[in-house]
Amino acid sequence: MQFSSSLLENAVNEFAKLPGIGKKTALRLVLHLLKQSTGEVTRFSDVMARMRNEIKFCRRCHNVADGDICSICANSGRKQEVICVVESIRDVIAIESTQQFNGVYHVLGGVISPLDGIGPDQLQIASLIQRVGTEKTEEIIFALNPNIQGDTTIYYVQKKLAQEHPQAVRVTTIARGIAFGGELEYADEMTLGRSLQNRLPVDKYVTR
Amino acid sequence: MQFSSSLLENAVNEFAKLPGIGKKTALRLVLHLLKQSTGEVTRFSDVMARMRNEIKFCRRCHNVADGDICSICANSGRKQEVICVVESIRDVIAIESTQQFNGVYHVLGGVISPLDGIGPDQLQIASLIQRVGTEKTEEIIFALNPNIQGDTTIYYVQKKLAQEHPQAVRVTTIARGIAFGGELEYADEMTLGRSLQNRLPVDKYVTR
Repeated sequence: MQFSSSLLENAVNEFAKLPGIGKKTALRLVLHLLKQSTGEVTRFSDVMARMRNEIKFCRRCHNVADGDICSICANSGRKQEVICVVESIRDVIAIESTQQFNGVYHVLGGVISPLDGIGPDQLQIASLIQRVGTEKTEEIIFALNPNIQGDTTIYYVQKKLAQEHPQAVRVTTIARGIAFGGELEYADEMTLGRSLQNRLPVDKYVTR
Repeated sequence: MQFSSSLLENAVNEFAKLPGIGKKTALRLVLHLLKQSTGEVTRFSDVMARMRNEIKFCRRCHNVADGDICSICANSGRKQEVICVVESIRDVIAIESTQQFNGVYHVLGGVISPLDGIGPDQLQIASLIQRVGTEKTEEIIFALNPNIQGDTTIYYVQKKLAQEHPQAVRVTTIARGIAFGGELEYADEMTLGRSLQNRLPVDKYVTR
């Protein structure tokens, strides 16, 4: 693509570095910004720089935060004794959107994946074990993606927890099965097989 | 969508204002930026602000430029006597990508569209007429989108040109017809009809 302005070209190249944004889309976005007022583009630019420079991570749960502690940990209306362990900030946002969880989180920052060179030490696992030791904890809910890496991580953390804190902490995982609205014939064997093994009594199965 | 940080939320909202970018995509982009170094995000932010604040429009052809005159007008290797009239900067980039045009441009900034309240006075038509009067001009090539608005604009400009500069200036338009690789049966009647009317001798039809 040929540009007659290096300012335009640089802007397009910066946008095109973002995931899923090609040169053509980048150009469309830049030309859109070019049509906006200087004030609006300055705000766009400032908000991005501030976000990266000023954002903090909650020192308790490692979720994004504006201060030392995130708004979820700081909320006394939430059950501080129930910890939902997730892979990333994105999962916190997904679970919060369901409005079905009233506990707190612990963001691991990834899952154990030897092939990608990610071991337990790169993740916030030690801080989770420590947290269970220092805070009153009733239940740990694993909400990791249902795949080998997720299962390995659950297995590892659970073993560590049993070693360090032999007192009873309830450890659970989110239900796995056929997605609501899904169709049996298109489900993979693993999911369908497990959903048969972990079948529920019909009286527990209530669609709200 | 629930965010535990207003910095994150603001950044997502800013991205979601861009055309074709929804909340989920915006979140993905922001989380990508969050993973980059502060330096990289600062550059992203600076490049956008600079682009909007410092970009100029060529005072001759109204294309984007870094200075008073765009790099295409300033290029003495290009035929300054052949002016390609286009609707927008995007069209300049599209034509430049073909590497088939060695003249200069004139960006109208839109086309005449009474329904959208765009008349000749909102466009760079007067400056085109003036340009033909003051500069040596051999040919004006209209490269507007083939629709009612484009045709109206061509008709209007051509009439104005004939009034103001009765001396002979060659006025042409880009060929309209079946797109290369297109199929006759899927072409609309208008395109197919016109491509029959404007048929070419086979010896002119050379695929390079």
